[in-house]
Amino acid sequence: MQKESDKSTFLQPGEQVIEQVSQSIGLVQTQYVRFFDGPDQLKLECGQTLGPIDVAYETYGQLNERRDNAILIVHALSGDAHVAGRHKIDDHKPGWWDIMVGPGKPFDTDRYFVVCSNCLGGCMGSTGPSSIDPRTNKPYGMTFPIITISDMVEVQRHLIDYLGIDRLLAVVGGSMGGMQVLDWAIRYPNRVAAAFPIATTARLSAQGIAFDAVARNAILSDKNFQGGTYYNTDSYPSAGLAVARMIGHITYLSEEAMHKKFGRHLQNTQDYQYILEKEFRVESYLDYQGSIFVDRFDANTYLYFSKAMDYFDLMKQYGCLEEAFRPAQCRFLVISFDSDWLFPSRQSREIVDALIIDNKDVTYLEVSCPYGHDSFLLDWQVQGRLVSGFLRQTHQKLQRAADSAKSAQPVSKKAHRESPAVGRISRKSGSIFEGQRVDHREIVHLIEPNSTVLDLGCGDGRLLALLQEEKNIHGMGLTLGAEDIIACAEHGVSVAQYDIGKYLGVFAEKSYDYVVLSKTLQVIRRPTVILRELLRIGRKIIVSLPNFAYWQGRLQLMLGGKAPVWKTLPYTWFNKPEESVNYMSISDFEDFVHKHLNARLIKKLSFHSQSGREIRLWSNLLADEAIFVIADKEYEKPPNR
Amino acid sequence: MQKESDKSTFLQPGEQVIEQVSQSIGLVQTQYVRFFDGPDQLKLECGQTLGPIDVAYETYGQLNERRDNAILIVHALSGDAHVAGRHKIDDHKPGWWDIMVGPGKPFDTDRYFVVCSNCLGGCMGSTGPSSIDPRTNKPYGMTFPIITISDMVEVQRHLIDYLGIDRLLAVVGGSMGGMQVLDWAIRYPNRVAAAFPIATTARLSAQGIAFDAVARNAILSDKNFQGGTYYNTDSYPSAGLAVARMIGHITYLSEEAMHKKFGRHLQNTQDYQYILEKEFRVESYLDYQGSIFVDRFDANTYLYFSKAMDYFDLMKQYGCLEEAFRPAQCRFLVISFDSDWLFPSRQSREIVDALIIDNKDVTYLEVSCPYGHDSFLLDWQVQGRLVSGFLRQTHQKLQRAADSAKSAQPVSKKAHRESPAVGRISRKSGSIFEGQRVDHREIVHLIEPNSTVLDLGCGDGRLLALLQEEKNIHGMGLTLGAEDIIACAEHGVSVAQYDIGKYLGVFAEKSYDYVVLSKTLQVIRRPTVILRELLRIGRKIIVSLPNFAYWQGRLQLMLGGKAPVWKTLPYTWFNKPEESVNYMSISDFEDFVHKHLNARLIKKLSFHSQSGREIRLWSNLLADEAIFVIADKEYEKPPNR
Repeated sequence: MQKESDKSTFLQPGEQVIEQVSQSIGLVQTQYVRFFDGPDQLKLECGQTLGPIDVAYETYGQLNERRDNAILIVHALSGDAHVAGRHKIDDHKPGWWDIMVGPGKPFDTDRYFVVCSNCLGGCMGSTGPSSIDPRTNKPYGMTFPIITISDMVEVQRHLIDYLGIDRLLAVVGGSMGGMQVLDWAIRYPNRVAAAFPIATTARLSAQGIAFDAVARNAILSDKNFQGGTYYNTDSYPSAGLAVARMIGHITYLSEEAMHKKFGRHLQNTQDYQYILEKEFRVESYLDYQGSIFVDRFDANTYLYFSKAMDYFDLMKQYGCLEEAFRPAQCRFLVISFDSDWLFPSRQSREIVDALIIDNKDVTYLEVSCPYGHDSFLLDWQVQGRLVSGFLRQTHQKLQRAADSAKSAQPVSKKAHRESPAVGRISRKSGSIFEGQRVDHREIVHLIEPNSTVLDLGCGDGRLLALLQEEKNIHGMGLTLGAEDIIACAEHGVSVAQYDIGKYLGVFAEKSYDYVVLSKTLQVIRRPTVILRELLRIGRKIIVSLPNFAYWQGRLQLMLGGKAPVWKTLPYTWFNKPEESVNYMSISDFEDFVHKHLNARLIKKLSFHSQSGREIRLWSNLLADEAIFVIADKEYEKPPNR
Repeated sequence: MQKESDKSTFLQPGEQVIEQVSQSIGLVQTQYVRFFDGPDQLKLECGQTLGPIDVAYETYGQLNERRDNAILIVHALSGDAHVAGRHKIDDHKPGWWDIMVGPGKPFDTDRYFVVCSNCLGGCMGSTGPSSIDPRTNKPYGMTFPIITISDMVEVQRHLIDYLGIDRLLAVVGGSMGGMQVLDWAIRYPNRVAAAFPIATTARLSAQGIAFDAVARNAILSDKNFQGGTYYNTDSYPSAGLAVARMIGHITYLSEEAMHKKFGRHLQNTQDYQYILEKEFRVESYLDYQGSIFVDRFDANTYLYFSKAMDYFDLMKQYGCLEEAFRPAQCRFLVISFDSDWLFPSRQSREIVDALIIDNKDVTYLEVSCPYGHDSFLLDWQVQGRLVSGFLRQTHQKLQRAADSAKSAQPVSKKAHRESPAVGRISRKSGSIFEGQRVDHREIVHLIEPNSTVLDLGCGDGRLLALLQEEKNIHGMGLTLGAEDIIACAEHGVSVAQYDIGKYLGVFAEKSYDYVVLSKTLQVIRRPTVILRELLRIGRKIIVSLPNFAYWQGRLQLMLGGKAPVWKTLPYTWFNKPEESVNYMSISDFEDFVHKHLNARLIKKLSFHSQSGREIRLWSNLLADEAIFVIADKEYEKPPNR
């Protein structure tokens, strides 16, 4: 038996349902399943037990034969199981993440099997404070035990078991959902292939707790709250819950988004009425949001959910974030939004930092989107493309690993020279396999198979993709452009949108066999500091650069009295990329390595970029590009080529 | 008769007091004055009338004989007349801006006469909703008419008249106080010599209105509010007002400040108690702030003040900001704080933009301070020094103008060559009159007396100060460093902390006789775009630059194979200022002016910086610095030197 979802009242779960998944994304049905029935009870983190527990959930798409295409989507504070599609043909609004979930959408239901359930403590079908306590036959109200993010995850894990899913391809969620994602990755490392914590944090900030506290205060001090026992009375703490929701709405939007959406427009008049009542459009909007929320949401669930968020603190729970993430085995895709001031990017970078320290596979992007915290619900252009490429690559890796485990054959490593990808020199940019930069070709040559590589200023990831393909390296890139990050994800390259000048501190001592700086040295600030950092991080550093003392430039300055401009250094002083540009000759850099870096120069490779020929004699005059391999003084191993 | 201030109850004004100002900053007394008594009534902006109006105010220091040293300080939403000092010897807290006001402090009461009054509508002694309506003999409550920022200013103006002050040296205020400052400058241009709008806006943002609306909602929906007639009852809308104050407190602090102050610390325990009640330290803080506020502040005043802020909108009132500021005649010192998200710097820059367009005398600094909106109440290190220098210079200008008007003598203009300030070349940096850069000396030489000059990258303002002194120019600078801005203010140079790359659009066509770019071209991005902008803004552009084709550099690259480094271009590629650096030779720049800028080269002055000698022959080889005067093609006037 299935129960039609009715969002205008708090859903009460029905009986256990074992029903085929709805295949139409247009029309979906909420299904229910009951756990911990009878004497079996769920032990909660607070020490109390709870049961039976009903879970309302929806599914989309088909679980494939391998059972490796399941994605669990986890909702935020005011969400529910209804993530996409419509319950009735005339529903004017689809599910809360319909832009992201559906056929051909980033979470492509033609390809993946998507599951979303109402969280424990909720009021949309899963057991929560508005459910009937079997011991008293009355709604729990404030006798409902305090629940935590881990308790929510625990219930989801039972649902996943029940659905016969051994390992989730991905667990995905924003805000409070993102907290659950992190908990999943840590506590069930074998059950998750990829974790997408979006617009979230590893611990709610003091400001976040403060907003929650004021919201709870508004609810608790409402005279109609009646200690939470309002369910069978005539009154409801509407005023308090509305104030809570209004505060929430302000924090979900950026100031800019509010300005664009409402400005200072008056709702009904042209001129001020000089009254204390609401006049501005933004006031009417908040009022409206408050009033519709009161109709669909339970005040007690608001208290319990906000408290669960306040309690979420991986640092407290595990001592520190690095300790927290140590057991995780999945790939991570961390996304934040630049206009989100409730869960600012800084908090996502804390997560990324810890993952990098733990040597986990992590990709990070701060999406530029003006809608504040709500961006994660609204942006599909950037977030969608990133998610889509990352998911596809994760799925492929998963399948390749499973296949190779089955056939027990090692992954083929093509010899470098024979590779069709490494052929004639081409300087065109385009698809990753279209052509390569000469310095890339030479760098691939320099790197040992199966080593670890950090590529700074990795751009679209073509060098790392090539190294993964040719040398089976384990790599990570840093770059800044969002399009580059998306391209990296599509090429299966892990990358963080980290500024080289700011975030190198997170990389541990000698954590990479190679650190590559390919034609990036010219555009970085404080190169001495950066290079010293790199010597700390990498066993070997590979630097490629254009030679400022190439003969063409010398002649231009000496005879023409002009600042040099030629093919590998094509910028005039007034027409160059916006970054700072440093000029150095091969000889300048060699001096620098010896005198200022106090490092060991293991190898120098000078070449002429157009012909691709190596220049061994008078290279500071005749070569227009060079590659250096350097290491710190402790490095004793002789160069092995 | 004076009435002792008692902050634990809402003050009721006493009789008119004509009393000598308290001279002790340690112990001050609130004084009262009554206006609009009898049939005379104040006509309010909403159309209603109000009277009598009592004003509570405090004064510090002495009004001097010229009566030109009076400063009016205007308070923000929860402030009062008690700006500094103590009412009783054992008051544990002094006035709300005690860090800024007092002997030897930025608003130095040994030097200035400081006045601060409780705003109209307040609950700290001035007439407001808690005052007795003489028509009914009951408190006004919600029958109090809606007041605006202009109404508050109107009452202050009566106080200033009453105190016998013709022109205020400065009117100063943050937040709601800053709104009043702007209103003062616009509506009483002859009564204000300087306006200091701090951490404020020309119109409250949608987000600001939204927070106010939620706060009002919490008060109005409190059952104890009783339509605002709670004054003589047993109950008070404490819960609603407390929620309002809590929301306010969150918005006054930055997320970072909250994190540092409270983190996620629990108030009384080490571990979570798993309860719905408050546990975190930040919750206790907000609770406490709410409860003490309820004791000292009137809920109705909160409604009226927040509404007055919501209504404040100079754009709506005057059509646009430029129109609004047109009548203003004072100097402006605009200050914002980088961590203030309630009144973000963007809103202050809107004000500065309009003032620049209107050709007003404006100085602007975004102070770096972590405390959010509250920074204006807490920072004295940066804000204080800026205010102090700016005030002293304004006072001196005022007195010089008055003296010169009296003696009817023109301001002396020393001949350039005889000036002791322009003597031997010295390259030391230090006090402005200690030594000058060679290019500065030459630039002073090039500029006509009494002209207008915009100096981009003006540093500490020494060139502009010299030009003001030597050539009586009217100038403005742009620079980035806070210390430079403070130095400019101390030298009487107007300056905005504006990035040249972003904000040139506000300067009108041909709004300056000269635009100077002295040794700044090397560090700007997109120089073509910037120089085109300058040709639009200035009649003549003066550019000074180091010559990259100086013979030393040519030899270094040609023979040594090294990127050039010498005295005027002293940076190696790995050790240079953090900015981008462009290299160009004299010849490069000349080509650029003709071919890319399509501009007219009016004058070229090449010289050897150490000797100070002009180089006329083979200058691209023998000169290490050059100055160019350029203009757009329409400029027909021949160079007049």
